[in-house]
Amino acid sequence: MRSHYCGDINTSHLGQEVTLVGWVNRSRDLGGVVFLDLRDREGLVQVVYNPDLKDVFDIASTLRSEFCVQVKGVVNARPDSQVNSQMKTGAIEILGTQLTVINASAPLPLSMDNYQNNSEEQRLKYRYLDLRRPEMAERLIFRAKVTSSVRRFLDSNGFLDIETPILTKATPEGARDYLVPSRTYKGQFFALPQSPQLFKQLLMMSGFDRYYQIVKCFRDEDLRADRQPEFTQIDIETSFMSAEQVMEKTEQMMRGLFQDLLNVDLGEFPRMTYAEAMKRYGSDKPDLRNPLELVDIADLVKDVEFAVFNGPANDVEGRVAALRIPAGASLSRKQIDDYTKYAGIYGAKGLAWMKINDLAAGIEGIQSPVLKFLTESIVNDIINRTGAQTGDIILFGADKANVVAEAMGALRIKAGEDFKLLEGQWRPMWVIDFPMFEKINGGFHAVHHPFTAPRGISAEQLAADPAAAISDAYDMVLNGCELGGGSVRIHNAEMQSTVFGILGIEAEEAQEKFGFLLEALRYGTPPHAGLAFGLDRIIMLMTGASSIRDVMAFPKTTTAACPLTNAPGFANPVQLAELGIAVVEKVKTAE
Amino acid sequence: MRSHYCGDINTSHLGQEVTLVGWVNRSRDLGGVVFLDLRDREGLVQVVYNPDLKDVFDIASTLRSEFCVQVKGVVNARPDSQVNSQMKTGAIEILGTQLTVINASAPLPLSMDNYQNNSEEQRLKYRYLDLRRPEMAERLIFRAKVTSSVRRFLDSNGFLDIETPILTKATPEGARDYLVPSRTYKGQFFALPQSPQLFKQLLMMSGFDRYYQIVKCFRDEDLRADRQPEFTQIDIETSFMSAEQVMEKTEQMMRGLFQDLLNVDLGEFPRMTYAEAMKRYGSDKPDLRNPLELVDIADLVKDVEFAVFNGPANDVEGRVAALRIPAGASLSRKQIDDYTKYAGIYGAKGLAWMKINDLAAGIEGIQSPVLKFLTESIVNDIINRTGAQTGDIILFGADKANVVAEAMGALRIKAGEDFKLLEGQWRPMWVIDFPMFEKINGGFHAVHHPFTAPRGISAEQLAADPAAAISDAYDMVLNGCELGGGSVRIHNAEMQSTVFGILGIEAEEAQEKFGFLLEALRYGTPPHAGLAFGLDRIIMLMTGASSIRDVMAFPKTTTAACPLTNAPGFANPVQLAELGIAVVEKVKTAE
Repeated sequence: MRSHYCGDINTSHLGQEVTLVGWVNRSRDLGGVVFLDLRDREGLVQVVYNPDLKDVFDIASTLRSEFCVQVKGVVNARPDSQVNSQMKTGAIEILGTQLTVINASAPLPLSMDNYQNNSEEQRLKYRYLDLRRPEMAERLIFRAKVTSSVRRFLDSNGFLDIETPILTKATPEGARDYLVPSRTYKGQFFALPQSPQLFKQLLMMSGFDRYYQIVKCFRDEDLRADRQPEFTQIDIETSFMSAEQVMEKTEQMMRGLFQDLLNVDLGEFPRMTYAEAMKRYGSDKPDLRNPLELVDIADLVKDVEFAVFNGPANDVEGRVAALRIPAGASLSRKQIDDYTKYAGIYGAKGLAWMKINDLAAGIEGIQSPVLKFLTESIVNDIINRTGAQTGDIILFGADKANVVAEAMGALRIKAGEDFKLLEGQWRPMWVIDFPMFEKINGGFHAVHHPFTAPRGISAEQLAADPAAAISDAYDMVLNGCELGGGSVRIHNAEMQSTVFGILGIEAEEAQEKFGFLLEALRYGTPPHAGLAFGLDRIIMLMTGASSIRDVMAFPKTTTAACPLTNAPGFANPVQLAELGIAVVEKVKTAE
Repeated sequence: MRSHYCGDINTSHLGQEVTLVGWVNRSRDLGGVVFLDLRDREGLVQVVYNPDLKDVFDIASTLRSEFCVQVKGVVNARPDSQVNSQMKTGAIEILGTQLTVINASAPLPLSMDNYQNNSEEQRLKYRYLDLRRPEMAERLIFRAKVTSSVRRFLDSNGFLDIETPILTKATPEGARDYLVPSRTYKGQFFALPQSPQLFKQLLMMSGFDRYYQIVKCFRDEDLRADRQPEFTQIDIETSFMSAEQVMEKTEQMMRGLFQDLLNVDLGEFPRMTYAEAMKRYGSDKPDLRNPLELVDIADLVKDVEFAVFNGPANDVEGRVAALRIPAGASLSRKQIDDYTKYAGIYGAKGLAWMKINDLAAGIEGIQSPVLKFLTESIVNDIINRTGAQTGDIILFGADKANVVAEAMGALRIKAGEDFKLLEGQWRPMWVIDFPMFEKINGGFHAVHHPFTAPRGISAEQLAADPAAAISDAYDMVLNGCELGGGSVRIHNAEMQSTVFGILGIEAEEAQEKFGFLLEALRYGTPPHAGLAFGLDRIIMLMTGASSIRDVMAFPKTTTAACPLTNAPGFANPVQLAELGIAVVEKVKTAE
């Protein structure tokens, strides 16, 4: 029915007769000539109907938005004055000779031109119309190109695409599982996988050596802007490869992706330990476009007569850090109050500050509510260490180390944006050397997951001092977002049991939940390591979309519903009986 | 850790030092020399350890099956007498110089050499070991190559890989849905998709023009050997393409696949109408390798004094068909009884037969329990029409047309196998021109699905005589298996409502279930058509696997359970409370 896509017509087709199909993006009668913007997935082209072809012109006059039409015509150069350089096809137009209305459209239930006027609910209810917007279509086309590029890379590097089950057992990621009642085993449930973690490890035990899958994962959590009940992972696992080799290979993949799709050379990714990232950026996923850094000053203030400073400075779990914002002395009292409130969201109990109004004026040039607690020598040491200049402000965080990292890390990001300090467009990196465990309420929790191997120590050494253990894990970070993370996995049963023990998983529970893994580890398991990328987030970053919903064809609302199909819905009582379950509580209104 | 895969070493590597990792497939000490068959996913290679390297030899002597080891050695030509032409690497061996045990293996819980001795349950419980068998590994590697080839074809033909939701609404395929309780909307349920049918149609309405997805689908049905609760579809949809074009494109894809993977040229696929397929083969998915055909003889027997024949012969819904089996006169009375029982499975109430013992002897040479009802002229007409020769047998089916087709179609397949009549290895075809509806218990049911367009008639014409309507649907069939099927879809609301009406779906129910589709059809829906292939079945056929379970990494048992992970399992009561559901009936024993 077509000879070309609309968006593909250009001056190389001048004089050719073309047949196009698509949708009426806009149609106007200007001075007795109909100008039709015809749209398909590849773009727009202008078609012109002159009144001298009366029959066709008459049809053209009846067109309304979103009619589906077939157009025949001849490609013509536009007059110089009408060339539209904003438009891919802006140098040409089609002189229409035929026109067929394939399917008319009723008036639209939402605005195509001003989509900001449509509510999120409307956009999702009429998703098939929302997806006609070129911006949305381009994102999904881009997404298809990304997965295609990733697959080509992995296929050509010997990775095998192997499918793992969707109906499976509760997985250990710790988020809430979606459950699926079993009909054969009434009263029992499958779980939808939060990731194929254990299956991909089993595939390594089977000898598949290099596995990948672009796969749906599921978490029944309360949703935020960047969360969806189902999301997509680029899931990778390898045998006989070190952390170093996995990082090299996946970095190469990501570099290729940016080169292919955006024509951007990401260069080599710098590496940074978790400890250094926390120290300098207060975050394990620092945005390196932001030049601001935290500077530790506990040693300078541990003897001051100011409990807010000297308390944390003398506490082994405490931290005192300074953040210099160039030209930040311009902040008003009100703006500083806003920064203080913002830090409060992340647990900071207050926010000390110091303006460097005039460096040459010595202590007279310094303005700070905490100045009275500091000697001139300490002030000078702080200025020297932070490199502060006239016109700068220094913000201080003093608390438990994790609170300082969170609050000052958040302020660093905010100040970077407020003061427009971001440099460069793409700043990828690796964060490595994570601790194996973090202590929450007195118990150890896995920082990565319970199958992650410690680096360079035996099971005995690990058991002796779990808090000190560093894991063989790695996160790929881009512009302050975690693109993916992975680790070398434990490949022997003793180490795995030791880790379960440290995590407080009793032998019986370990057997019940992960018995098959412990058993599998007994039969010549190879060393293996892997990684999982969040595909949706990668597409968001690469397309500049502001919501994960804008890079998925049919997302759910933030209450995990689908206004298009009206899912979820009530079930047939017969089917519930077949499953051996009953509804005991119904939600009364949509939450 | 490796320089090569084991299976890739050949005479081009002679004299090179190689490093290999893999599993001990077998290790034998023959006359003071250890012969180790080392295995990885690409195959086996023989490594030889001589006692002159004592340290290494001593380690080699301790190896047991499925130890994971690293080997260093030099590639050597085998002595002529030891060349193994059955083995890819059979011309060489590795003279081992180093050996490291990476991970030992406990004695195995199942036999790797004689897997027939392992029960299906054992094979699934220790799936990671079962998948180490080269035969299993090759199938999954083959599967990865198939999906990669399919994707390359579709990507390069402008098809976009777009993901559709797994948590969705009950779909209309008619099988039982898997349900997923919603936590936000307590008492309500998502359904897992039986196919992305409606979403792919919506994507066409959005203008994506060419879509594909290799996607998991779910059906909660009682399982047979070739069914699994989750299976994988190559799902395709296009806009502005005719049935003809969709068939051409997907035929090209399948031809490319067989060329790439099996080096087989499938040639052009013949087309056959549903009516002809049922008439000649008693099946809408005939195996064309089987040369046997049904021959209609109602006109010959409508006046005989034998109610079994003249009843169906004079019934507009009846049919009398003959099936000639060359050399079938050798069948014993017992064997004919077995054929009769076999036909009975498919509803036949008996099986009349006629042996042509000696064609030259006239009626004397004919042996048949029904001979007394037939005149010599009728017998001659039957012989002429079926082309029967001396030594053949003719089987007769007389009943309702659908019973005759089923029973005689089944006998045709059985006789083709029993008499080893199959010709050629690969016989693809298209079956087209299906009826729109079939009548079951007085009501119309969609032969394809309710979104299939009729061919060449208006909604009024369809409503006037639904039974006569032919659909614009097509099935791709290979060797008697349906590889995939599809259709042109309805693209206007009036036609869709008419079809719902014929199917007895009340306006209210249609609105409740498919309201969003009817609404979507109002806004300039393009003409669209598509197809879905069963990936698992394609892999089964191409690899010659006898069960769908042998082409999936982690399949379920025939009671939809996973002996490896022990899924399904009991749920946490807290979680059930969060979902607003309760278990009211528990299965007592595994069914």
